[in-house]
Amino acid sequence: MEKENGEKWKFQGNKGLNTTSVSVRGVYNMLMDSINNNDNNKTLIRLCRVDPTDNPLFRTTPVAHEAVAAAAQSFNFNCYPPTVGLPDAKRAIANYLSSDLPYQLSPEDVFLTVGGTQAIDIILPVLARPGANILLPRPGYPQYDSRAACCQLEVRYFDLLPQKGWEVDLDSLEAMTDDNTVAMVLINPSNPCGNVFTYQHLEKVAETAKKLGICVISDEVYAHVAFGNNPFVPMGVFSSIVPVITIGSLSKRWLVPGWRTGWIATCDPNKIFQKTGIVRNIISYLEITSDPLTFMQAAVPQILEKTKAEFHLKNLNMMREAADIFDDVCKEIPCLTCPHKPEGAMAAMVEINFSQVKGIIDDVDFCVKLAKEESVILLPGVTVGLKNWLRISLAVDPSDLEEGLSRLKAFSLRHAIS
Amino acid sequence: MEKENGEKWKFQGNKGLNTTSVSVRGVYNMLMDSINNNDNNKTLIRLCRVDPTDNPLFRTTPVAHEAVAAAAQSFNFNCYPPTVGLPDAKRAIANYLSSDLPYQLSPEDVFLTVGGTQAIDIILPVLARPGANILLPRPGYPQYDSRAACCQLEVRYFDLLPQKGWEVDLDSLEAMTDDNTVAMVLINPSNPCGNVFTYQHLEKVAETAKKLGICVISDEVYAHVAFGNNPFVPMGVFSSIVPVITIGSLSKRWLVPGWRTGWIATCDPNKIFQKTGIVRNIISYLEITSDPLTFMQAAVPQILEKTKAEFHLKNLNMMREAADIFDDVCKEIPCLTCPHKPEGAMAAMVEINFSQVKGIIDDVDFCVKLAKEESVILLPGVTVGLKNWLRISLAVDPSDLEEGLSRLKAFSLRHAIS
Ligand SMILES: Cc1ncc(COP(=O)(O)O)c(C=O)c1O
Ligand SMILES: Cc1ncc(COP(=O)(O)O)c(C=O)c1O
Repeated sequence: MEKENGEKWKFQGNKGLNTTSVSVRGVYNMLMDSINNNDNNKTLIRLCRVDPTDNPLFRTTPVAHEAVAAAAQSFNFNCYPPTVGLPDAKRAIANYLSSDLPYQLSPEDVFLTVGGTQAIDIILPVLARPGANILLPRPGYPQYDSRAACCQLEVRYFDLLPQKGWEVDLDSLEAMTDDNTVAMVLINPSNPCGNVFTYQHLEKVAETAKKLGICVISDEVYAHVAFGNNPFVPMGVFSSIVPVITIGSLSKRWLVPGWRTGWIATCDPNKIFQKTGIVRNIISYLEITSDPLTFMQAAVPQILEKTKAEFHLKNLNMMREAADIFDDVCKEIPCLTCPHKPEGAMAAMVEINFSQVKGIIDDVDFCVKLAKEESVILLPGVTVGLKNWLRISLAVDPSDLEEGLSRLKAFSLRHAIS
Repeated sequence: MEKENGEKWKFQGNKGLNTTSVSVRGVYNMLMDSINNNDNNKTLIRLCRVDPTDNPLFRTTPVAHEAVAAAAQSFNFNCYPPTVGLPDAKRAIANYLSSDLPYQLSPEDVFLTVGGTQAIDIILPVLARPGANILLPRPGYPQYDSRAACCQLEVRYFDLLPQKGWEVDLDSLEAMTDDNTVAMVLINPSNPCGNVFTYQHLEKVAETAKKLGICVISDEVYAHVAFGNNPFVPMGVFSSIVPVITIGSLSKRWLVPGWRTGWIATCDPNKIFQKTGIVRNIISYLEITSDPLTFMQAAVPQILEKTKAEFHLKNLNMMREAADIFDDVCKEIPCLTCPHKPEGAMAAMVEINFSQVKGIIDDVDFCVKLAKEESVILLPGVTVGLKNWLRISLAVDPSDLEEGLSRLKAFSLRHAIS
């Protein structure tokens, strides 16, 4: 780019940053543009982002608000937090997680992060020694891809199998592992698939990872959001088999994604992460990165300890109801197939059956036209690694969900092969 | 590292992460250890970190607390924030900054970040095209070094000249610039030097950067913390000469570093950052990174608009008093020289005169022994790029500062050449 004297400015945007996979936020912004420019006069219905907080039905508990307001109003938490997090928050998270584990985590196993997002942003560069690769689920959560690209960590995808309730294709996972493979990621309850892995399957995953010599990053941002038959089992249960890095967050279970408070927990009774330098590296990385708000950290113990069971039950009931509505409508839309009724997390995947539609070339085209004609936003599967599928968020008001799905149905029928 | 069956785990800490310069937090933790293991029974005095919030004298204004508590208690800000920040926060920051500029920033010029730290973490990879280098001040703020190392951005140091009130050595800066130089960083008011750059010098810097075809990153995290003769002038004043990226934060001026709320503002009336893809890249990067809390963003307009002038004046008076105390004591310590009385930001640099001390090998050794013998923590200059200097924080209670400095004096006399 020229200066007015004809010489050049030497800086320019880093094109490397644009080569990462299609970002969810980028696509979302594009779909919103296509809605802002349509003229169908329909109210906007977003079945795309997993952020239910617009909706008064999905309000967090007053317990959480009181804890935060009290911490914010105290003058004790205006300081920088300690590198690894406030001791009381670490202790509370260790206890909270340990109640589902066969052994007790210590506060030193826990590191506070700016949401689950920053937990991912920290753990990938920590594992990214030169030449290393990491195994990601497909479909998955695109933050892993973007972040791996930023730290030159090669990514390999193992399939989640829709016909098998989205279980891991362990054979293909084994086949793609080599001496430079350092870790695999599992998201449980699963975003975007909506399944909850069984105890038996997780145990198999742990055994496989052990055999391969890799660690497991268990993204449990949706921990306990399980409303079907399979109970939520944290991967840490198997940490005596394989060392596990657990990622957690207040965002989903407490319905407060804007609070940006999450954690990394090293579940590792055999101290393998200490011996391999992973723990030291996590701390080094935390030393050079921005932290979660101090007063938010101060509120964590109250939030984890004082939230009533009824709050969680009410939310699970809403999610179960949403899954029922969703499953019923899906059955009425010939061009869409949902291979597995959602039973956890807050979204589901449906496959577009292109033999049943005309004039639509792919999942992105589907979503753009749907946005234009019906003011409904879904996420194209390509953003989560599965082209020609759609990701539908269920964390919306039941009446919005019904309306959104009925427009989706009308759209699909209008574009059906006649 | 071996598994019990003799095979190996394949993961290990990324050694690359440990090669970045000595981190401030790392050194701080080391000095704290050396204090915890001493037996001098003296109370701990920290003249190291610029976090005055321990001290009731350095309390933020109730206006800020009320704004945050109100936003936290409303149920409207529990959602994920927009990628670039809440519109009201962007507008408020644009207006706040514009009141010191010859032209009006628009809300689109502003991006919310998790403190000034994340602003650095975003802007460096945005500029880091392959082969690029960036010019950093020496001494400087080590986050730039750590972050540049993470994104393979080569770093070159230009000197700040202690004999010239810490002005930029513009000749050496020119000499080290080449076709791959993309930007220079200036910190004003200066951490760690404690000077405030004059209008005339900033204009020269802008002209030089323009001539060289590089942009200026102006770290104004200490904006308005100027208590000497030179008034604070934002670099954006010269943005019609050279495009400027301004980094700001609530942390210092409002005494709330734990609130983790900062910003990037592109001061660029000629839209060069748009034309060179920098703006698009900032947004791409924000799409894949964790955000500042939504309700904190919601509190920003009130904080910026409603804080009373007296609050700021009181703090400047305290800093001026601290600078006076500091300057007086320095003159009584033969082995330490402060080349420029502090007039801005919250720290100062003093040089160790090794011809006057015995039994101390360098700045780190000085700080370790001082911590051990006197329970006073200073930051060794090497952490900010200037070996054998010391960085002393002035943002402490005047009585702590006097006590800390008098122990520093006692220590220095005890170790003086007899
Ligand atoms: C699987 C998964 N991991 C991590 C995150 C990020 O968590 P947070 O919103 O707490 O940053 C999300 C958010 O949607 C997610 O779905
Ligand atoms: C020069 C400079 N830039 C950036 C920062 C980081 O700002 P924040 O504390 O808002 O993250 C600091 C903090 O001390 C600083 O001194």
